[in-house]
Amino acid sequence: MLPIALDAMGGDNAPGAIIEGAHRAVAELGVPIVLVGRPEEIESLRGDLDVLPASEVIAMDDAGSKVRTMKDSSLVRAAEAVRDGKASAMVSAGNTGATMASALLRMGRIKGVARPAIATPIPVPGSTPTVLLDAGANAECQPQWLVQFAQMGAVFARERYGIAEPRVGLLSIGEEASKGNPLVKETHALLAEPGALARADARFAGNVEGRDIMTDDVDVVVTDGFTGNVALKTLEGGMRALVGSVLGALGATPVADEAVAALMPLYAALDPDSTGGAMLLGVDGVCIISHGSSSATAVVNALRVAGEMVEAGVVERLRSVVSPA
Amino acid sequence: MLPIALDAMGGDNAPGAIIEGAHRAVAELGVPIVLVGRPEEIESLRGDLDVLPASEVIAMDDAGSKVRTMKDSSLVRAAEAVRDGKASAMVSAGNTGATMASALLRMGRIKGVARPAIATPIPVPGSTPTVLLDAGANAECQPQWLVQFAQMGAVFARERYGIAEPRVGLLSIGEEASKGNPLVKETHALLAEPGALARADARFAGNVEGRDIMTDDVDVVVTDGFTGNVALKTLEGGMRALVGSVLGALGATPVADEAVAALMPLYAALDPDSTGGAMLLGVDGVCIISHGSSSATAVVNALRVAGEMVEAGVVERLRSVVSPA
Repeated sequence: MLPIALDAMGGDNAPGAIIEGAHRAVAELGVPIVLVGRPEEIESLRGDLDVLPASEVIAMDDAGSKVRTMKDSSLVRAAEAVRDGKASAMVSAGNTGATMASALLRMGRIKGVARPAIATPIPVPGSTPTVLLDAGANAECQPQWLVQFAQMGAVFARERYGIAEPRVGLLSIGEEASKGNPLVKETHALLAEPGALARADARFAGNVEGRDIMTDDVDVVVTDGFTGNVALKTLEGGMRALVGSVLGALGATPVADEAVAALMPLYAALDPDSTGGAMLLGVDGVCIISHGSSSATAVVNALRVAGEMVEAGVVERLRSVVSPA
Repeated sequence: MLPIALDAMGGDNAPGAIIEGAHRAVAELGVPIVLVGRPEEIESLRGDLDVLPASEVIAMDDAGSKVRTMKDSSLVRAAEAVRDGKASAMVSAGNTGATMASALLRMGRIKGVARPAIATPIPVPGSTPTVLLDAGANAECQPQWLVQFAQMGAVFARERYGIAEPRVGLLSIGEEASKGNPLVKETHALLAEPGALARADARFAGNVEGRDIMTDDVDVVVTDGFTGNVALKTLEGGMRALVGSVLGALGATPVADEAVAALMPLYAALDPDSTGGAMLLGVDGVCIISHGSSSATAVVNALRVAGEMVEAGVVERLRSVVSPA
């Protein structure tokens, strides 16, 4: 496998935690990695990892459009390495908008794909995660794009979680086909057509509601990037509030230590560090977007997912299942 | 105070739990209540409560438009009683769409209000709830409507939770005014105008994200009814999954009983039964919508909120603060 291009400069804990994660991934997973970033900031940490030099860094709060002028940034160089056949995938915990923009700019889209979408795994207690997309790439969508998201999400759910025939739900505000906004109603009609998901070996499960996301009733949930991002962040905030409260409530009791220990496996499963990041589906290469707050563990998991998606040939699979919009 | 018209027929546990809640509300809160529904189904349960007869029942899964033909339904009769000055408020745990439709049809809108909105309190650990609106009345909205929702939500937050100057956030996918879909961007510009929320004695806190809803950074969160409903139900599903997992994880440990006891106050605060239901803001009367799964306790809380909103003169307050759309 070609090395995975890891943006050493992106993320709240860069470059320290990022490069620590790279070393652990090499040791634990055996994946080849090339660090992309400023050599002078990486040198003392890189050990025997290769470095692809990039003199610029796009900040976490910069506009995504910065990729057009910052051509020697770590993000643009990482995407370029994938395009040029020098890397098998790119991984970044940096600016999400700029990561998407650099992947689009340098890798381009898979032929026929109207818009790439961010596919984010949402943990489901006791089951495989639900893949939510679009989790924020496209604030406004057209029905045909959502059909492609459904096809791509199904491929991702199969390759990443081994689900033979993923059930794809359309996020709405009621199960009936008549419920929702115009985008949802038009998309429902398209997804209900026989054959809409046939090439993706997936099944349309109809409209689903927000409360279905964290259940095992559905494997993929499709929505526009505005609604998807709101749902994702609402869930993150809710989990944080509840876990914080649980730990707070237990901290005041005599059973605190034991109870907290009992909670830890659950907390870990719900922790974004464990999910291994989101994948930008529809660009012509593997691009994994890790949480901005990524720890070294999160980086290891993101690199693991990147390697698995390369090995599974997910981009080739996407190319063969997406129908033109 | 005039009696509160309680739909005895609406909800998964009607009429038993509904009427049990009514008796408890009379005993515990001293609020006057009139039961609305089929006399033959109520008679054996009503005790000394008055009954307003209604021969029809709109089912939980009926279309809201049924209110046009089912004029002797409990929902239509309850709304009529408010319009005719025979009741001070209506409360139902029944079909949400039909509850809204009956309130609109019989009470009408407050002058100047373009569309009523459902205001739902979202619990915040350690603080007053955040009022989310629109939680599902209008799947498609215009910017001017969202400005009215902001004004109405602020009045509700003040009258219900005693917040002197509510902070109103606009739900988006980034804090910057440039983020979001066209509806959000246009609404942001309107809410940022000096005076937009002046009559409501509220302050525009700018864009907020999903993760801010369950924090005390904001008192009111405004969005369209599609996004609001998705956020609300996503949170419900997430809470259910997490609380279930927590109890499951603890159930397997020796500390289970003590730990579960420690969790109970938190669980109760997050339970929809405790929040007292949502209020339909913008119709010309007090209309409280309780969860379909309401227990007797939920009914008591909904009746308490209805009584408080009547006493506070919230409809008169709304009339004076809403600017024409």
